Amino acid sequence: MEDNQKKYTELANRIYDLDGAVYECVGSSLGRTFTGGRERTVRTLSMLMYTKPDGHLLRSELALISNMARTIKNKEEKSRMMTEYNEILMEIEKLPDVFGKVDILDDERVRLNLAAKREKLSENDHLVICISRTQGSAGNDIGFELADNLKINYYDVEIFDQVMKRLEADKDAVNDAENFVDFNKYTKKSGGSLKTRFREFNRYHGLPKQDAVFFNMSDLICNLAKTEDCIIMGRCADMILKNNHIPHISLFISAPFSVRVEHIMAVRNMNLKQAVRFLKKMDRQHRKYYQFYTGEKWGKPENYDLCINSANYGIKETIDVIRRMIGK
Amino acid sequence: MEDNQKKYTELANRIYDLDGAVYECVGSSLGRTFTGGRERTVRTLSMLMYTKPDGHLLRSELALISNMARTIKNKEEKSRMMTEYNEILMEIEKLPDVFGKVDILDDERVRLNLAAKREKLSENDHLVICISRTQGSAGNDIGFELADNLKINYYDVEIFDQVMKRLEADKDAVNDAENFVDFNKYTKKSGGSLKTRFREFNRYHGLPKQDAVFFNMSDLICNLAKTEDCIIMGRCADMILKNNHIPHISLFISAPFSVRVEHIMAVRNMNLKQAVRFLKKMDRQHRKYYQFYTGEKWGKPENYDLCINSANYGIKETIDVIRRMIGK
Repeated sequence: MEDNQKKYTELANRIYDLDGAVYECVGSSLGRTFTGGRERTVRTLSMLMYTKPDGHLLRSELALISNMARTIKNKEEKSRMMTEYNEILMEIEKLPDVFGKVDILDDERVRLNLAAKREKLSENDHLVICISRTQGSAGNDIGFELADNLKINYYDVEIFDQVMKRLEADKDAVNDAENFVDFNKYTKKSGGSLKTRFREFNRYHGLPKQDAVFFNMSDLICNLAKTEDCIIMGRCADMILKNNHIPHISLFISAPFSVRVEHIMAVRNMNLKQAVRFLKKMDRQHRKYYQFYTGEKWGKPENYDLCINSANYGIKETIDVIRRMIGK
Repeated sequence: MEDNQKKYTELANRIYDLDGAVYECVGSSLGRTFTGGRERTVRTLSMLMYTKPDGHLLRSELALISNMARTIKNKEEKSRMMTEYNEILMEIEKLPDVFGKVDILDDERVRLNLAAKREKLSENDHLVICISRTQGSAGNDIGFELADNLKINYYDVEIFDQVMKRLEADKDAVNDAENFVDFNKYTKKSGGSLKTRFREFNRYHGLPKQDAVFFNMSDLICNLAKTEDCIIMGRCADMILKNNHIPHISLFISAPFSVRVEHIMAVRNMNLKQAVRFLKKMDRQHRKYYQFYTGEKWGKPENYDLCINSANYGIKETIDVIRRMIGK
């Protein structure tokens, strides 16, 4: 405690001196960072080092000085100032409880995030990239081309649908594409006659058909992620893998509504009204599906490792950003 | 038209043959992708090439074949199959209106997105990184360390506050930190007596004080972005630069609420209840401030170039992801 007090005072004095020296070199029109005289400034700075809650204020003071120091024209003087600045910064980082000391980490999530442990990929880890996306953000184009680029497998709804159709003897057990499009537990549409529903209820071990499809799908996705490098589009794959503790990268690709409308008009040959209606419907279905199976809100940045605005990059550059991010 | 028809049929036949050849090599338990016989399959595939709306179905069919081809053990055979696959893919990409043909682009936004034109940075462009963040996601730590890493200037609320205090003769014109914290146009708090308000109204050329602060701030941010490389924290800087057509990179850093609560408890020495209340209050203020000055919803992925979940990386790796993304 005593020791820290001394250290604070010493550092505060060095900061005060550095500020004065930088000001002498650069003669900023803004004046010195500290205008209150040595004694008062040292007391204030010591307090900033002592009181955690205001740790960020100390950082701002330091940034102000270094911002100014970087404008020094004389190279030698600039280097001298920046060296002192860096040394002070290192000393401060050694203090207990200052800014930057407390990391932000979701241990479990970091352990699962492949992009955060590139160098630590073991032989047993596969590069599994889960891509969620809004309709019309060219997410599928991006996923497909990325898979081709990385020479790894690509799975989307249609593929899951086909694979599962063949895995199951009972073909109509697994029409997931249809299941997704009509997804709504609470409308009449999903009903069918009581007889049909009862038959289905029995067939899927007491689960409603769409839940059975979801659980089959989950198994398939976990198996894929454990055995091969691949890109998996949608299907809440990130949440499924997270819940099963299987490492992966989770991305969300989106674009502003207006840009998506234009994209859909071009891709699906729709007029403005049709495209708007189509997108609103698809967004609604996505939201419901995701919320129902994960209990989370769809498209919130904190549910993914990374969200990319494809409209701000275009398809090619989005792929490039992802490749740079995963270091490939 | 006639020509395209021919091309479609030719490509469909090649796809059908490739599927057969891959199946022969790999003997997949799933069977061939196309089980309907040549004539029917070729008709179906031609239709998929012809009808834009189902372009993604064609992509899925191709992905199914290539997924299988990649599992071929014999290297020579595998290479032969993948070559044919890639050739077919190239031919398809030359067709009008197939998948991947329509890019997704917000031209204006791409032009302004520095991360999307790394190689095209001109002498006049500065590396300006705008970072928005939720409280407790360590966004400030990340911004500060990133600036130090890149050796560029760092600006946050406190710095703006100080700089503006000095730029203005009238010191109390610009206490923005206070302005932000108390930001609420519609509560009694912001009021003051009628006399005070009238005096302020006159002083800021008829603008309410907080609007005057915002416009001064906007000018300052635009000037910075035009003259130096820097990192700007918060203040809707990305929207200000976008509206003024100044290139920049816009990032949003966030983390799940529960992780932010833990971070705040550690950093600010609060108990659980205090931390939750504090974060909820700060989120509310952020949301209001952002919405009021931009008309947009705060924290939506499509309003930024990139959103990063800091809890899934930690401070150091988040900085590294950003550096890789901007190619530095």
